[in-house]
Amino acid sequence: MEGVDHLAHERNKAQFDVEEMKIVWAGSHHAFEVSDRIARLVASDPVFAKDNRTRLDRKELFKNTLRKTAHAWKRIIELRLTEEEASRLRSFVDEPAFTDLHWGMFVPAIKGQGTEEQQKKWLPLAYKMQIIGCYAQTELGHGSNVQGLETTATFDPQTDEFVIHSPTLTSFKWWPGGLGKISTHAVVYARLITDGQDYGVNGFIVQLRSLDDHLPLPGITIGDIGMKFGNGAYNTMDNGVLKFDHVRIPRDQMLMRVSQVTRDGKYVQSNVPRQLLYGTMVYVRQTIVSDASVALSRAVCIATRYSAVRRQFGSQNGGPESQVIDYKTQQARLFPLLASAYAFRFVGEWLKWLYTDVTQRLQANDFSTLPEAHACTAGLKSLTTSATADGIEECRKLCGGHGYLCSSGLPELFAVYVPACTYEGDNIVLLLQVARHLMKTISQLQSGKKPVGTTAYMGRLGHLMQCKTDVQKAEDWLKPKAVLQAFEARAARMSVACAQNLSNFTNPEEGFHELAADLAEAAVAHCQLIVVSKFIEKLQQDIPGKGVKQQLEILCSVYALFLLHKHQGDFLSTGSITSRQSSLANDQLRTLYSQVRPNAIALVDAFNYTDHYLSSILGRYDGNVYPKLYEEAWKDPLNDSVVPDGYQQYVRPMLKQQLRNARL
Amino acid sequence: MEGVDHLAHERNKAQFDVEEMKIVWAGSHHAFEVSDRIARLVASDPVFAKDNRTRLDRKELFKNTLRKTAHAWKRIIELRLTEEEASRLRSFVDEPAFTDLHWGMFVPAIKGQGTEEQQKKWLPLAYKMQIIGCYAQTELGHGSNVQGLETTATFDPQTDEFVIHSPTLTSFKWWPGGLGKISTHAVVYARLITDGQDYGVNGFIVQLRSLDDHLPLPGITIGDIGMKFGNGAYNTMDNGVLKFDHVRIPRDQMLMRVSQVTRDGKYVQSNVPRQLLYGTMVYVRQTIVSDASVALSRAVCIATRYSAVRRQFGSQNGGPESQVIDYKTQQARLFPLLASAYAFRFVGEWLKWLYTDVTQRLQANDFSTLPEAHACTAGLKSLTTSATADGIEECRKLCGGHGYLCSSGLPELFAVYVPACTYEGDNIVLLLQVARHLMKTISQLQSGKKPVGTTAYMGRLGHLMQCKTDVQKAEDWLKPKAVLQAFEARAARMSVACAQNLSNFTNPEEGFHELAADLAEAAVAHCQLIVVSKFIEKLQQDIPGKGVKQQLEILCSVYALFLLHKHQGDFLSTGSITSRQSSLANDQLRTLYSQVRPNAIALVDAFNYTDHYLSSILGRYDGNVYPKLYEEAWKDPLNDSVVPDGYQQYVRPMLKQQLRNARL
Ligand SMILES: Cc1cc2nc3c(=O)[nH]c(=O)nc-3n(C[C@H](O)[C@H](O)[C@H](O)COP(=O)(O)OP(=O)(O)OC[C@H]3O[C@@H](n4cnc5c(N)ncnc54)[C@H](O)[C@@H]3O)c2cc1C
Ligand SMILES: Cc1cc2nc3c(=O)[nH]c(=O)nc-3n(C[C@H](O)[C@H](O)[C@H](O)COP(=O)(O)OP(=O)(O)OC[C@H]3O[C@@H](n4cnc5c(N)ncnc54)[C@H](O)[C@@H]3O)c2cc1C
Repeated sequence: MEGVDHLAHERNKAQFDVEEMKIVWAGSHHAFEVSDRIARLVASDPVFAKDNRTRLDRKELFKNTLRKTAHAWKRIIELRLTEEEASRLRSFVDEPAFTDLHWGMFVPAIKGQGTEEQQKKWLPLAYKMQIIGCYAQTELGHGSNVQGLETTATFDPQTDEFVIHSPTLTSFKWWPGGLGKISTHAVVYARLITDGQDYGVNGFIVQLRSLDDHLPLPGITIGDIGMKFGNGAYNTMDNGVLKFDHVRIPRDQMLMRVSQVTRDGKYVQSNVPRQLLYGTMVYVRQTIVSDASVALSRAVCIATRYSAVRRQFGSQNGGPESQVIDYKTQQARLFPLLASAYAFRFVGEWLKWLYTDVTQRLQANDFSTLPEAHACTAGLKSLTTSATADGIEECRKLCGGHGYLCSSGLPELFAVYVPACTYEGDNIVLLLQVARHLMKTISQLQSGKKPVGTTAYMGRLGHLMQCKTDVQKAEDWLKPKAVLQAFEARAARMSVACAQNLSNFTNPEEGFHELAADLAEAAVAHCQLIVVSKFIEKLQQDIPGKGVKQQLEILCSVYALFLLHKHQGDFLSTGSITSRQSSLANDQLRTLYSQVRPNAIALVDAFNYTDHYLSSILGRYDGNVYPKLYEEAWKDPLNDSVVPDGYQQYVRPMLKQQLRNARL
Repeated sequence: MEGVDHLAHERNKAQFDVEEMKIVWAGSHHAFEVSDRIARLVASDPVFAKDNRTRLDRKELFKNTLRKTAHAWKRIIELRLTEEEASRLRSFVDEPAFTDLHWGMFVPAIKGQGTEEQQKKWLPLAYKMQIIGCYAQTELGHGSNVQGLETTATFDPQTDEFVIHSPTLTSFKWWPGGLGKISTHAVVYARLITDGQDYGVNGFIVQLRSLDDHLPLPGITIGDIGMKFGNGAYNTMDNGVLKFDHVRIPRDQMLMRVSQVTRDGKYVQSNVPRQLLYGTMVYVRQTIVSDASVALSRAVCIATRYSAVRRQFGSQNGGPESQVIDYKTQQARLFPLLASAYAFRFVGEWLKWLYTDVTQRLQANDFSTLPEAHACTAGLKSLTTSATADGIEECRKLCGGHGYLCSSGLPELFAVYVPACTYEGDNIVLLLQVARHLMKTISQLQSGKKPVGTTAYMGRLGHLMQCKTDVQKAEDWLKPKAVLQAFEARAARMSVACAQNLSNFTNPEEGFHELAADLAEAAVAHCQLIVVSKFIEKLQQDIPGKGVKQQLEILCSVYALFLLHKHQGDFLSTGSITSRQSSLANDQLRTLYSQVRPNAIALVDAFNYTDHYLSSILGRYDGNVYPKLYEEAWKDPLNDSVVPDGYQQYVRPMLKQQLRNARL
């Protein structure tokens, strides 16, 4: 950080201990230490520089990513990094790459779905990157509906092999990251056919490319599916297309942990329960939620710092103009996102616990919490990724015109983040799954089944259907109990209303279909309740550091009351609160914004992001925005020459009225 | 359109005359004919092909745009196109270019702010493109606050010249489109200083580049400000930075229609009233609103067609799966956007009328409707551009994974559109202007001033503050009167609540600042009322064609009830409707979606967009999506070679465990 700190006056205003908040954000002293050390390591390594990313064409960009990936792996080996450190390093390098799928999907798929023998064979190869794998599920014609996949894996008892085949154009694998150019292997999902019968979708380990010359093996056609949203962004990834023409693999490359095909072609279930597979899903979605808090906090960090630098209007007596962060509309847009970043952080932390809990229970053959855990992670994935995608774009708009420049870092952050709303389950499809679980929970109440975990409040329906929120003045909204009850009442009543409307249909499926939009809204209400309640629970812990807990209490209230204001309609129409209480919440929100204001810069400093990681001129730690924006502009290739290429041919003839005869 | 029409069965379902709807959308038979003819002309000209746009690097992209621009101008001359035809042609070429600013800002600025003499001198040059102009207002440090611009234009009586100067880094012009590489001239806004006194911001015509060799003139430094959001997108535009070092221009290049500097350096007002300048602003914003309807309808067209092609889940007895357009959540996201596109179209049409009306009044020295017209255009610019930007992104998400591919057309549409929320007035700043006008209107009621135009309903405050919406069953929400009254009551009550809260502050400015977020919400309510009421007014006209009017009535109801549902909180908290009525509106909305469903494809066909203009594989007229997606993928440069560049250097050493010793 060179020179003057233009934001020093802002940092001095903070009413809490930033260093302590950094620990809270990181999750532990240990996590902070690792993160901080690795972030600096990456930032100081010239190979990991990323300033020119948005100016490279596809091939240069991709090659550049290969270089960074190889260098990252080299450093990981040289420095003997732990698994945790290696994963931090990859994330601070901050470029989507085939390694994401190798480590994030291929390895977990084998771990979760492979037998012990299979794990023993394949995992060491993968751990050393002697093979590189991807996750090939989605096809041109099928994404959300996994059961509709068309690729076939037909058992041939003569040779003891499966024949993998793409029978139609729509059955070509399409989207798998790392597939297009790099992966040597894939976990391929295909319909298992044996003895003439279709046993549905199963996973298979398939080698795709020769380990000698990297060419696709016989019968395999692979390519990259082309440019995706944004400059740089996800174009560093080789999402691919894959066509099989009767490709043979040994029988033992079917992932056989829960079901198997025997030598004579019989399809049998193993004694490992199918539900075990859900553990992996909980794991993957938990990482997505925690990634959401990272992406959102990056955007918020940029917008907050720039809002303190940017001045517009309100100069009095020739003094400086107002910092735009002092405008109430700016605060009302920005501070809820700041609060959301913290909220998502804590709910992500809690999901980590949930994953451990679920895993332990599964090992003890206790499947009782699984449906709830599954619905809960699906819902939180949907909620946090949607809010993060929208939030990043809002942060970009909060930066006015300059937010539209790639040098602000925000366009790329948005473009690279936004598919999280689609992959690992389309967010709407996921909400409908949550809604299904909620309806089931309600219908099971009658048979006396006690709702567990995040649906436990449904056990208090009697109370929640008729309770009145006890808020008489604005400050009453600071009480966690009042907030919780309002959110519980709203969620419960929306679900119950849906259940009642459903009961008017003779065919429940038809009812579910017809009322899907309302059901999705009820699911959102339920998920927001989870985030609010986990934030509140977090605050019941002991949190050391001067002023740290107070700041988090303020942010928790901001998050809850912002949602309450935004979804006022839900709260009012269900009678969970009164108009007057709603208006009091709004008043309280304004007060809270004033309390956040002096702490805003310190609250984003607590994320502890390096300038390298942020890669945003507007979000620079030192606030030295304008000279750097100016400097950066000159790096554009268009500025290589004063008179642009094309002037002589196209512009001059226009100016000289000689266009008529020009050959263009 | 080659081969089979995969959407023929959808087109056959339509219950109205699509050809007649095309006329309604275009605005008139004449407008349709021109649009249709020019669109085909552009689509059939290979120079205007745009398939490779997202794959070009910045320099290639820019040069390509120069080529298209020159070709467009050539065709305009050769074919002796009318002004209307030429402008359609430029818009169908569909690439942001310096010509947009030349025709859209430079020429209108001279027309609006130049004296007759100045117009005589400069306009013919501009009309023939012997000079190319841009609009240089924004600076690195100042956008929204135009009065805070720092560039100076100091009158030098000795030489009868102005000296244009950039005193600080933040005073550099920054953003003007066309400035970076192409414009020879600019209208530059600078603080006029004469006789040692600062007379605030005025416009000046400044030559920037030599007409001989295109080099910047002495004292002028110009460059491009670098990459912006997205691939292709707005990077075809040379937004620029401009620094003046004491550049001299003759006195008569100050735009002198409303104020002048005399030979001896006196600053005098002409007898032309200042308000005339607002006419231009109304004009520019009207074009932005009508552009919003175009951008949104393009996205909706793509998402609607693809939603009818895409199938996912719900296969019964081995039959085909459900088209995703049949899912109610898909409908609840998509159809309101379809309705919004039509709504924005009609309000844009009405704004054209408003512009004419305002112009005529100004010529007759009647300024009475100007503040209202000004607020109304500001508000509609804000409302329609925000809704359109969000709507395009929602359409992208509605296409699932494939919407993330550039070949879907949606990423670029979003990236190129979204700055409309920022330029020509940041949308939040504009809403606050509307709010100011609303508060003024209310305060003037007491002095008996009758509100005009779109604020006329404020004249019925007495009624609106206590009226009850008369809706007893779902179908009652189809009555325009019920809808209008609910929207009027909501808007009026929100404004009045703000006014009351403001009156609690001793300093009204402080109050306005403090309550800004609520005021912005009241402004949104007011603007939505305008759009709803103009849609309703449109339907009071005679609209020929089988079923056409019925379809528009359905869309009008969808638009209104969708807003009502979305902003339920406003309606309920102001007591404008009851919870039960809100729930009835929601029921009615579901029925309306079912009515839209069979007509959806025909309703987007009515936009009459060519495949060239849409440039989206997902939105193809014939619905032949999958083979074309597959074909397109192979065009990516990464597919030039089977083994990618970088494999030998970076990937192979990794696979072969030779990374440790590799030099990367
Ligand atoms: C960047 C990126 C990376 C990816 N990486 C991988 C990868 O590594 N491996 C892999 O296998 N796949 C990958 N995918 C694919 C991804 O998993 C799918 O895109 C995702 O599952 C969504 O499926 P879809 O594209 O078929 O969407 P669709 O299901 O076709 O969605 C289209 C629309 O239909 C709606 N819809 C669908 N079903 C229903 C329903 N039942 N009810 C209501 N609405 C419905 C959706 O809400 C959406 O609006 C990737 C995708 C992207 C964008
Ligand atoms: C693609 C593009 C093309 C452009 N083309 C041109 C051109 O040709 N010529 C030209 O002169 N300019 C051009 N501009 C500049 C454009 O006009 C400005 O970006 C725009 O006016 C917004 O101003 P700003 O960037 O200073 O935003 P800011 O005003 O700095 O906005 C930053 C934040 O502050 C908030 N804010 C600011 N003032 C207030 C207030 N009073 N109350 C509450 N909140 C406030 C805003 O809402 C926003 O959230 C272009 C910009 C873009 C992005």
